[in-house]
Amino acid sequence: MKAVRLHAYDQRPTLDEVDDPKITDPHDVIIKIGGAGLCRTDLHIIEGQWKEKTNVPLPYTLGHENCGWVHAIGSAVSHVALGDTVMVHPLVTCGLCRPCRAGDDMHCFQGLFPGINVDGGMADFLKTGARAVVKLDPIIKPRDVAALADAGLTAYHAVKKAVPLLYPGTFAVVIGAGGLGHIGIQSLKCLTAATIIVVDRSEGALKVAKESGADITVLADGKHIQKVKDITNGFGCEAVIDFVGEGTAIADGVAMLRRAGTYYVIGYGGTITAPAIDMISTEINFVGNLVGTYNDLAELMTLTAQGKVKLHTQTYALEDFNQAMDDLHHGHLHGRGILLPAHAR
Amino acid sequence: MKAVRLHAYDQRPTLDEVDDPKITDPHDVIIKIGGAGLCRTDLHIIEGQWKEKTNVPLPYTLGHENCGWVHAIGSAVSHVALGDTVMVHPLVTCGLCRPCRAGDDMHCFQGLFPGINVDGGMADFLKTGARAVVKLDPIIKPRDVAALADAGLTAYHAVKKAVPLLYPGTFAVVIGAGGLGHIGIQSLKCLTAATIIVVDRSEGALKVAKESGADITVLADGKHIQKVKDITNGFGCEAVIDFVGEGTAIADGVAMLRRAGTYYVIGYGGTITAPAIDMISTEINFVGNLVGTYNDLAELMTLTAQGKVKLHTQTYALEDFNQAMDDLHHGHLHGRGILLPAHAR
Amino acid sequence: MKAVRLHAYDQRPTLDEVDDPKITDPHDVIIKIGGAGLCRTDLHIIEGQWKEKTNVPLPYTLGHENCGWVHAIGSAVSHVALGDTVMVHPLVTCGLCRPCRAGDDMHCFQGLFPGINVDGGMADFLKTGARAVVKLDPIIKPRDVAALADAGLTAYHAVKKAVPLLYPGTFAVVIGAGGLGHIGIQSLKCLTAATIIVVDRSEGALKVAKESGADITVLADGKHIQKVKDITNGFGCEAVIDFVGEGTAIADGVAMLRRAGTYYVIGYGGTITAPAIDMISTEINFVGNLVGTYNDLAELMTLTAQGKVKLHTQTYALEDFNQAMDDLHHGHLHGRGILLPAHAR
Amino acid sequence: MKAVRLHAYDQRPTLDEVDDPKITDPHDVIIKIGGAGLCRTDLHIIEGQWKEKTNVPLPYTLGHENCGWVHAIGSAVSHVALGDTVMVHPLVTCGLCRPCRAGDDMHCFQGLFPGINVDGGMADFLKTGARAVVKLDPIIKPRDVAALADAGLTAYHAVKKAVPLLYPGTFAVVIGAGGLGHIGIQSLKCLTAATIIVVDRSEGALKVAKESGADITVLADGKHIQKVKDITNGFGCEAVIDFVGEGTAIADGVAMLRRAGTYYVIGYGGTITAPAIDMISTEINFVGNLVGTYNDLAELMTLTAQGKVKLHTQTYALEDFNQAMDDLHHGHLHGRGILLPAHAR
Repeated sequence: MKAVRLHAYDQRPTLDEVDDPKITDPHDVIIKIGGAGLCRTDLHIIEGQWKEKTNVPLPYTLGHENCGWVHAIGSAVSHVALGDTVMVHPLVTCGLCRPCRAGDDMHCFQGLFPGINVDGGMADFLKTGARAVVKLDPIIKPRDVAALADAGLTAYHAVKKAVPLLYPGTFAVVIGAGGLGHIGIQSLKCLTAATIIVVDRSEGALKVAKESGADITVLADGKHIQKVKDITNGFGCEAVIDFVGEGTAIADGVAMLRRAGTYYVIGYGGTITAPAIDMISTEINFVGNLVGTYNDLAELMTLTAQGKVKLHTQTYALEDFNQAMDDLHHGHLHGRGILLPAHAR
Repeated sequence: MKAVRLHAYDQRPTLDEVDDPKITDPHDVIIKIGGAGLCRTDLHIIEGQWKEKTNVPLPYTLGHENCGWVHAIGSAVSHVALGDTVMVHPLVTCGLCRPCRAGDDMHCFQGLFPGINVDGGMADFLKTGARAVVKLDPIIKPRDVAALADAGLTAYHAVKKAVPLLYPGTFAVVIGAGGLGHIGIQSLKCLTAATIIVVDRSEGALKVAKESGADITVLADGKHIQKVKDITNGFGCEAVIDFVGEGTAIADGVAMLRRAGTYYVIGYGGTITAPAIDMISTEINFVGNLVGTYNDLAELMTLTAQGKVKLHTQTYALEDFNQAMDDLHHGHLHGRGILLPAHAR
Repeated sequence: MKAVRLHAYDQRPTLDEVDDPKITDPHDVIIKIGGAGLCRTDLHIIEGQWKEKTNVPLPYTLGHENCGWVHAIGSAVSHVALGDTVMVHPLVTCGLCRPCRAGDDMHCFQGLFPGINVDGGMADFLKTGARAVVKLDPIIKPRDVAALADAGLTAYHAVKKAVPLLYPGTFAVVIGAGGLGHIGIQSLKCLTAATIIVVDRSEGALKVAKESGADITVLADGKHIQKVKDITNGFGCEAVIDFVGEGTAIADGVAMLRRAGTYYVIGYGGTITAPAIDMISTEINFVGNLVGTYNDLAELMTLTAQGKVKLHTQTYALEDFNQAMDDLHHGHLHGRGILLPAHAR
Repeated sequence: MKAVRLHAYDQRPTLDEVDDPKITDPHDVIIKIGGAGLCRTDLHIIEGQWKEKTNVPLPYTLGHENCGWVHAIGSAVSHVALGDTVMVHPLVTCGLCRPCRAGDDMHCFQGLFPGINVDGGMADFLKTGARAVVKLDPIIKPRDVAALADAGLTAYHAVKKAVPLLYPGTFAVVIGAGGLGHIGIQSLKCLTAATIIVVDRSEGALKVAKESGADITVLADGKHIQKVKDITNGFGCEAVIDFVGEGTAIADGVAMLRRAGTYYVIGYGGTITAPAIDMISTEINFVGNLVGTYNDLAELMTLTAQGKVKLHTQTYALEDFNQAMDDLHHGHLHGRGILLPAHAR
């Protein structure tokens, strides 16, 4: 089959011909890919940011945001059948360890993360596990929802953590209204009555933010910290949800927090830095976020089915992955980029 | 009256003769001090760490950990009477703003913090507010419990936040077993069934930790990170409660966290630093802590009355504050230092 | 002044001429009534249902849902001034006991409940306490918002408790779409993404429900339990929020719960009855609800100011209270009845 | 094999010779029973209380509290091996539905409950599922811990729900200090600093309660409601944990609750009855409880391994089940009765 594989860090991956994945465990499920999302994390992987985190042997196939149809199943799989349309939760999990049993799929003791530490879904086929597949209505096109598997899930997961802080009258600041951010905004709108302030450097992104439900948009023009302070009556906001996580975004975001406020870290590349005295004198918090649980994904898919959350996507043929990566890097990709294998076009 | 007043940063305070405080508001309460605790924060104030946080005009009286007897009350105060023995919550609060009404005394919109941003209790008398006083059994000696007002309260407040993480089978690492830490250990023992690991550079402090209920003590000898990893089966701990917050303590503590673990910042002086990629790949959290609520203080006093929490203290005459500060600075003060005005000795 | 006073149980109250209330405590606030809501509880009080709960000496003035202007203040009141437009939280509280400090105004150790156990607001003036008043924008007319003080608050408080159960994909059943119910529906819409099913015996009420945001309305025609089961795929709903609480409503509501579901009791008159084996075999819960906290009220007023919650009201002159009670009793009062003293018309 | 099977309601079961269970699903696990606990629920099953709840076809094998060794495994089971000592969680679950993924094993959409609705473990062998087995240290004797599987788990699960209410200074009333109650008391001691009051009709049970950590014991002699009121300063307690659930226990327990208190229903046989006006005027709650989660069971086993929870048991040969049932019925069974197959004696 065709697969987008990384051979060396700081070099673009190549489209290779490789063997199709095979069932080797009773719980294996092989997916015929209907759409594979492109993520800024793919660029970060190429840059080598994940090299020491994963120690994944090169070459390997990228793609951690997948949706498609069941192509083959192991002997112990009975809840899905060949041909079923399925969303793929990003983690392959055991279902038996404490985190799995508490719903924390992200922290499974034996978890695999296709596209991050084993072969992913920028290919014709993907091997995942029985617990990762979410059955969909067959009328749904995988290309239309694939971006929920990671971009959507990550945004929704962080928003769900913030919900208890965001009672009526509070303010949530969303930093970055791109592929994740526009889902974050819609999720906030569905789950809270907070006033949603969106900060971005791009007027176009702010337009998308407004359409997604932002109450107030603020251009990151150097005066944005003061603007947020003014909007929040000088107090700052209860929650900052940061989808950027690099450059000046972090310091700016921290400056927008009110006393006892919480900063949700989602975007990355930069470094969280806070003098301990600042943390104790104002009692602020920093919360890490890693994709989300299977139940989070199911909830988000419910919201999508109900028409309450809508994805913006832009499709590319699988072999045009380089073009898609260029567009993402240069800010020309509006919404989320989805790669389509030949059989899904 | 006599008062320990700071005249300039980076200089020790002096014992001055000043006017007694007077009732000016219907909710004022004036306390005859029975014991005023000395805190590392007093040293940090002198060093200037709080200068820009508070902009308090100098000179002013130190002392934010106070207990004594009611000496005078405003016209709207009816729940305490002259002569009552009372613990003093560190904040003077309005009782009418959202944070006060939610129990978050620390974030009162009009909160004053005697000893931090107005005159404190290292003196014969202290002016505080009606909502700050907790009535005590008259047989209690203020000098024996004064350290609960800040050291105890701060430790207890942070521990309470950590309780939901600390189910049976989990590990809590306490960094620093001094004036706050030894209360933190006892609070963990009362409220959780977690295994308590205490890390400190001093063998003497670890001895106190053991007496306070530590299950395992680890000398901070350079191999302590690995030791904690070994004790926790290679995973690290669910919660780090850091009473030091400077030097290598922070980096060490972060290295001891397991996936999805939480770091409670209490001690300060250093800087929290974490690459965003580390926070998202492991989903860890940092939680700031600022003293505690009035209800926290009442709960801690209940534990003390029940004999479940015991304070280690060392008393000094008020005029010997310099000696107490030297002892604290040089690590010769075991437990919490308590200053006694002449009338309380 | 004029006041609607109850002289004997099972007899309608009378409009009496009584002395104006006077300031006797430093925290007293006297309100010039701009609107006093009529509640089913007023009918229940007349029926004697509250007689043994309160032992209030007769005669006394009814009216526990009040809004107006500050007319006089005690010597310790400084956060409101004469003439301010204020909403009145139903409880007069001390602000010093554990429940007050935890935000649970309803359980203040010294709480008074004007209209229930002391003189209420169906009069020209009402005496309440400093902690009960919420300052409003002076352009707001008390008659338009008075019903938030109890009907709105009670509905909102119950909904807030249910929010953690109501993730996307869940179902909330609201029983009764009257004065409280229509606020409950709007609150659910603001705070959750659950599917809202409203059950009522009146087609007119279901019409209001639909306008208030109900996703599905079900006429209580004898087949309503089965209809709710069908809508919920045979499982039943996660939360029943019962604003009726008498007749067959309770048994019907319990039958609509799914496993691990929760029943919120708000309306009353009937009796909750459940074999213990039913509670343990399905793990269901019953939750009592009593008005709400001051912060709940402030949040609800925010939602109203933002146009997200709208009250349906019908006004009457204060002296027409009998007509209003008749209309409520006979189901002819649509929305909430508001009594207006002469000075507020 | 030998099995204790119920042939008709209101008749004691008989010891039958039946076929050994066989592996039919890839996730099946067959357990060689080392100890099967006897529960009051077994008596309630015989009385027919569960008849309409389960519709289980008779005859079937009783026994829902089991521990033993792995005897056979399905083709997809790899986390345990033949001969492993294992605790058996009472539910056989799918691991794929929403409740399983949220940790709520008790509410699995396809859950089976051996001993309740399919063949149980009062036999030589038991068929359960891969997700139900908890691997134990091989030095542990199943007979010593079997009672954790249901009696212990149920008590612990209810206590865990109550923990957030039980801060220092609060009171928990435990009704009934038998097989479940004595684990409940120890669990409360491990997880809270509340004052534990135990009410029972038997002086012997109160002695066990005291040894288990009760702070105060109260004989149910007709004056016990007043005694609890007196102990709790007239307020009543924050939590009643009722292991009896029949006779006067329920009404007594409700009378012991304070405002906003919560009643945990565990024992059954009687009926929960509360006028809605009582529930709303005091804002009390009733919480159902059904065994517990797998993670609850793992936590309880940790506490047992740490020596913090100790089981009282009395063993019988499997064929003496009638004697054991008589002893339980007549109050002669102290601690929990454990049936031992011939191979486990």
